[in-house]
Amino acid sequence: MKDHLHHHREHHSKSSETVRDIIIGMSDGLTVPFALAAGLTGAVDTSTIIVTAGLAEIAAGSIAMGLGGYLAAKSDAEHYASERKREEDEIVTVPDVEAQEVQDIFKTYGLTETESASVVAALRQRPQDWVDFMMRFELGLEKPVPGRALKSALTIALSYVVGGVIPLSAYLVFADAHRALDVSCAVTLLALLGFGAIKGRFTGAPAIRSGLQTALIGGLAAAAAFAIARMIS
Amino acid sequence: MKDHLHHHREHHSKSSETVRDIIIGMSDGLTVPFALAAGLTGAVDTSTIIVTAGLAEIAAGSIAMGLGGYLAAKSDAEHYASERKREEDEIVTVPDVEAQEVQDIFKTYGLTETESASVVAALRQRPQDWVDFMMRFELGLEKPVPGRALKSALTIALSYVVGGVIPLSAYLVFADAHRALDVSCAVTLLALLGFGAIKGRFTGAPAIRSGLQTALIGGLAAAAAFAIARMIS
Repeated sequence: MKDHLHHHREHHSKSSETVRDIIIGMSDGLTVPFALAAGLTGAVDTSTIIVTAGLAEIAAGSIAMGLGGYLAAKSDAEHYASERKREEDEIVTVPDVEAQEVQDIFKTYGLTETESASVVAALRQRPQDWVDFMMRFELGLEKPVPGRALKSALTIALSYVVGGVIPLSAYLVFADAHRALDVSCAVTLLALLGFGAIKGRFTGAPAIRSGLQTALIGGLAAAAAFAIARMIS
Repeated sequence: MKDHLHHHREHHSKSSETVRDIIIGMSDGLTVPFALAAGLTGAVDTSTIIVTAGLAEIAAGSIAMGLGGYLAAKSDAEHYASERKREEDEIVTVPDVEAQEVQDIFKTYGLTETESASVVAALRQRPQDWVDFMMRFELGLEKPVPGRALKSALTIALSYVVGGVIPLSAYLVFADAHRALDVSCAVTLLALLGFGAIKGRFTGAPAIRSGLQTALIGGLAAAAAFAIARMIS
C-alpha cells in the first residue's frame, strides 16, 4: 500500500509536470490537425491544400498553446509573488487577524481554538514558516518552480507538433485525399488508442477505457469537422 | 485591504471557474482559427476554402477542447473519490501512520511534535474531518463540484466557437482572401487586445500588458502559420 502511495505522490513531482505537459500538447496535437484534415477531405479532392492547412494549423496551434502556457505560468508566478508579499506584510501589520485566520482554517475541520492554539502560537514564532503555511493552506497556492514556464511551453509546443505530424503524414504520402483520409484515420485512431492507454497510466484511469475515450474525442471531432466542411462545400 | 483580500479569494469561487473556462476557450478560439485562416491566405486566393477550413477547425477545436475538458474533469472527480476512499481506509487500518503524516506536514513548517500534538489528537477524534484534512493538506486535492464537468465542457466549447467566428467573419464578407485577411487581422487584433485586457482583470495582470501579450500570441501564431503555408505552396 505504501508503494502505491509513494507512486501516487510522485504525481506532484517535477517529472510528472513534464508528463502532464506532453499529455496536454499531444492530446490536442493528435486531435485537431487530424480532424481538420479529415474535415477538408469532405470538401477538396487533392492532398496539397490539406497538407498546407494542416501544417499551418500545427504552427498556429503549437505556438498558441506553448506561448499561452508560458504566459499563464509567468502570470501564476507573479500572482504567487504578490500574494506572498501581501501575506508577509499582513503578519507584521495585522498579526492578530492572521492568527485568527489560521484558527479559522482549523475550525473548518472541527477543531476548537484551544486545540489549535499551540500550532497558532508556534507559527507566530516563525514568520517565514507562517507565510508558507498561509500561502499553501489559506490561499492554496504552490510555490512556482523557477524556469518552469519556458520548459513547459517548449514541451507543450513540441508535443503538439509530434502529435499533429502523425495524422498529416498520410496526406504527404497519398496525393488522393480520400485514400489519404482512410490511412490517416487508421494511423491516428491507433495512435490515439495507444496514447490514451499510456495517458491512463499517469492519470490513474484504466488503460483500455482511457484509450477508447481518447480515440472517441478524436473521432467525434473529425466527424464533426468532416460534416461541416461537406455541408458548406 | 480586506476588500482586496475578499476580492482575491472569490477567485476560487464557482463563478470564477466559469470565467476561467471562458478564458481557456476564447484564448484558443480567437487565436488558432485566426492564424489558420491567415496562414491559408498565404497559399490560396479565394475565401471559400479558407471559410471551409476555418469552420472545420472551429468544429474540431471546440469538440476537442470541450470533450477533453469534460473527460479530464470526470477523471479528476474519480481520482478524488478513489484517493478519498484510500485515506478513509488508512485512518482505520493504519491510524498511527496517518497521525505521523499529519505531524510530518506540520514539521515542514518547523513545528515540533509537541506543538502539533493537540491538533493531531483532535483530528483523530473526528474521522471525517481528518480525511478532509488529509485530502486537502497532504494530497492537495480539492473536492470536485458535482455537474461541473458538463458545464465546464459546454462553456469552453461555446467560447471557442464565439472566439473563432470573429476572425472568420471577414472571409465570409470578402471573397478576395487578401482583402479579407487585412480586415480579419484588424478585427481580431482588436478583439485580442480587448479580450486580453478583460482577462487581466481576472488573472490580476495589468490590463494593458495582458492585452498586448494576448494580441502578441495571436499575431505570432498567425505569422508563423502564414510563413509556413507560403513556404510550401
